[in-house]
Amino acid sequence: MPKAVVLLSGGMDSATVLALARRKGFACHALTVDYGQRHRVEIAAARTIARLLGVRVHKVISLDLRWIGGSALTSNTPVPKGRNTIAGIPVTYVPARNTILLGLALGWAEVLGAHDIFIGVNAIDYSGYPDCRPAFISAFSRMARLATRSGVEGGRVRIHTPLIRRSKADIVRTGTRLGVDFRRTTSCYDPDRRGRACGRCAACRIRRKGFADAGIQDMTVYHQQS
Amino acid sequence: MPKAVVLLSGGMDSATVLALARRKGFACHALTVDYGQRHRVEIAAARTIARLLGVRVHKVISLDLRWIGGSALTSNTPVPKGRNTIAGIPVTYVPARNTILLGLALGWAEVLGAHDIFIGVNAIDYSGYPDCRPAFISAFSRMARLATRSGVEGGRVRIHTPLIRRSKADIVRTGTRLGVDFRRTTSCYDPDRRGRACGRCAACRIRRKGFADAGIQDMTVYHQQS
Repeated sequence: MPKAVVLLSGGMDSATVLALARRKGFACHALTVDYGQRHRVEIAAARTIARLLGVRVHKVISLDLRWIGGSALTSNTPVPKGRNTIAGIPVTYVPARNTILLGLALGWAEVLGAHDIFIGVNAIDYSGYPDCRPAFISAFSRMARLATRSGVEGGRVRIHTPLIRRSKADIVRTGTRLGVDFRRTTSCYDPDRRGRACGRCAACRIRRKGFADAGIQDMTVYHQQS
Repeated sequence: MPKAVVLLSGGMDSATVLALARRKGFACHALTVDYGQRHRVEIAAARTIARLLGVRVHKVISLDLRWIGGSALTSNTPVPKGRNTIAGIPVTYVPARNTILLGLALGWAEVLGAHDIFIGVNAIDYSGYPDCRPAFISAFSRMARLATRSGVEGGRVRIHTPLIRRSKADIVRTGTRLGVDFRRTTSCYDPDRRGRACGRCAACRIRRKGFADAGIQDMTVYHQQS
């Protein structure tokens, strides 16, 4: 079985990506980064999902990005609640996060001898995130081929983004079909102290709408209703 | 004064780059990463250099890369000593390190509103390192423009590599002219417990030869002679 590195956050998208990578026959090596995110509860979710979906190895590493700040997820900036019609880049965007996460995955892949990296970026729901766009992924891929041993020795590195153009409803359907237990995933950007989803941030709203649109029951316990 | 992020390792090259960035009129924000490197003594050197060269802010962050391994600098693989004629990528290459370091610099630069990042890569002395090559830097630059807020909002990010094609002798001369106190820098990959340079690893050999070729006295205390 060829090895793959799968970035696993604990959310719905990366859980679905992990299930897809397993279905494609990869021996999955999951990587979760504790970057000081406000919704740190996702780390525990990632551990559960990694176990349920049978990864070969699960690494959880610490890389505090709060010193960079610049995001509602890594600073005291409040997470917006309710319908958010502000255009542009959401305040939950974390500067250069996907570049850093993919860089870590790239280093690990090289040592594992893996040529495949999976990431659950999506350009539909969070259209304002610069580092979820197809153009970013293409540019990272080109760079990755030059950055490592394989770039010198004629190998290849491929960044897989199977969800990049899918709707949340489609992700809910795909994950459900592949046996992902979405109850064990977490989406909320601003959970309460017991880890319960707020129900009102953008991530909760998109999650709820995804289940509703897919016609699949959302078993998530929300702290507040809409 | 425009702001710049300068990757500062504690070695000769990044110290010289910092001096060059200051000379160009940048308000320098230095970033040092404690990645579990064997030659951890360089962190202390970086602190001293940052102070001597008057940076605006110096961040020293922890990101242990030993879990990735794959390098003599982050694992128990011995650092080769003496003349090393093995072709290809040196065992001191750290997988994806420059991608990760530049990714962190990119995130910080975005939050600072800095459009300029300096890194002391060199394609001459360590010609086997994939991520010190001009082609890698070009590809990273293209990716960086898409990865961040500035990529969406029409800003720019520039990766400066003023030493990429310079000889070590040239770096010694440039740094000396700019007032870099090279005694406070460290190059050795395998210092003894007191932090003294071994004198025999590739980094020590290149350092010694650089001073000799430049005709400038090397004040470094080496633990062993050649």
